[in-house]
Amino acid sequence: MKVIPIHTDQREQILDITAPIRNLVAQGAFSSGVLFLFCPHTTAAITINENADPDVKRDILYHLKKAIPQSPDFKHFEDNADAHIKSVLTGFSLVLIVENGKIQLGRWQGIYFCEFDGPKDREVWVKAVPDQGV
Amino acid sequence: MKVIPIHTDQREQILDITAPIRNLVAQGAFSSGVLFLFCPHTTAAITINENADPDVKRDILYHLKKAIPQSPDFKHFEDNADAHIKSVLTGFSLVLIVENGKIQLGRWQGIYFCEFDGPKDREVWVKAVPDQGV
Amino acid sequence: MKVIPIHTDQREQILDITAPIRNLVAQGAFSSGVLFLFCPHTTAAITINENADPDVKRDILYHLKKAIPQSPDFKHFEDNADAHIKSVLTGFSLVLIVENGKIQLGRWQGIYFCEFDGPKDREVWVKAVPDQGV
Repeated sequence: MKVIPIHTDQREQILDITAPIRNLVAQGAFSSGVLFLFCPHTTAAITINENADPDVKRDILYHLKKAIPQSPDFKHFEDNADAHIKSVLTGFSLVLIVENGKIQLGRWQGIYFCEFDGPKDREVWVKAVPDQGV
Repeated sequence: MKVIPIHTDQREQILDITAPIRNLVAQGAFSSGVLFLFCPHTTAAITINENADPDVKRDILYHLKKAIPQSPDFKHFEDNADAHIKSVLTGFSLVLIVENGKIQLGRWQGIYFCEFDGPKDREVWVKAVPDQGV
Repeated sequence: MKVIPIHTDQREQILDITAPIRNLVAQGAFSSGVLFLFCPHTTAAITINENADPDVKRDILYHLKKAIPQSPDFKHFEDNADAHIKSVLTGFSLVLIVENGKIQLGRWQGIYFCEFDGPKDREVWVKAVPDQGV
């Protein structure tokens, strides 16, 4: 397992982590297989989305904040229940396919770390399973 | 990696892709292992749900449209921010277990491609890892 | 594939299944690899979240119930469309990394079964792929 360290500097923030993950695969020197990403936090998540217009990231955060506002109706004592819920809905694990030594992503796809309760020091854990596949 | 081509003919549509995925596994001729599905798009997703009453698909799309309407509050210039957000919440990768040469699904489960910005030509990418497992 | 039986006793309930999954890994006697969890239902899901304050579970269920209420606008004849939608958004599969014979979870993470249409007898399916990885 490899660890990608991440530092966030806002409460809610989406960071492109495609480059460090591509680098890990390049260092791993395996031509094909599967790559697993895991977010070891409960108020952050990982997802995939458009790597072109940065307004997509803004719109995702805007919607989540509006749909799941911080609220006195939540009972969790740390006042970050909204961040836990956003993380559950976005997800904690991703599976990526590796072929010809490269992560296979769609043309417009990037890999994103989603911070919902920053700023914090965070990590993404990465496990590679070189190809046994067909 | 195998590619399943998909054609959607509406803006929002949920298509059952269980049969082509079962066929891939049958062709792959491995008795047990894990199957990974990946959606290489940013305005479409893959999920699992009920394969009996088609109203379940209708209700999922109905809810998502109501909860995440197209809106002038979004800034993404292509006017499909809603589709990006629906995709993030639904998810881009799935893991399926294969035993005795067959994908293991619950009694009422089917595998679904979710189009949120069609009509478009789409793909689902499939990677098999034959069994090393216990 | 191993099966973890689960019994829920409320319509909506989040149950900690970290212990039985840790036990399966201990019995499997492999030191590193990947563990796949699959929920074979269409009105239940699996996720990860905080294992400390039980109010986090309460707040997740509270939000989902408020955001996706049972409604006459849904057409699914079983009157549990809300449960299908909550399951799609929460997710049906999880990937966990195993190192040194233990599931690697973040400090505050537990693994949770989410019931949205109980009480019911349920299952979580578990597949291990011992390490071929880097």
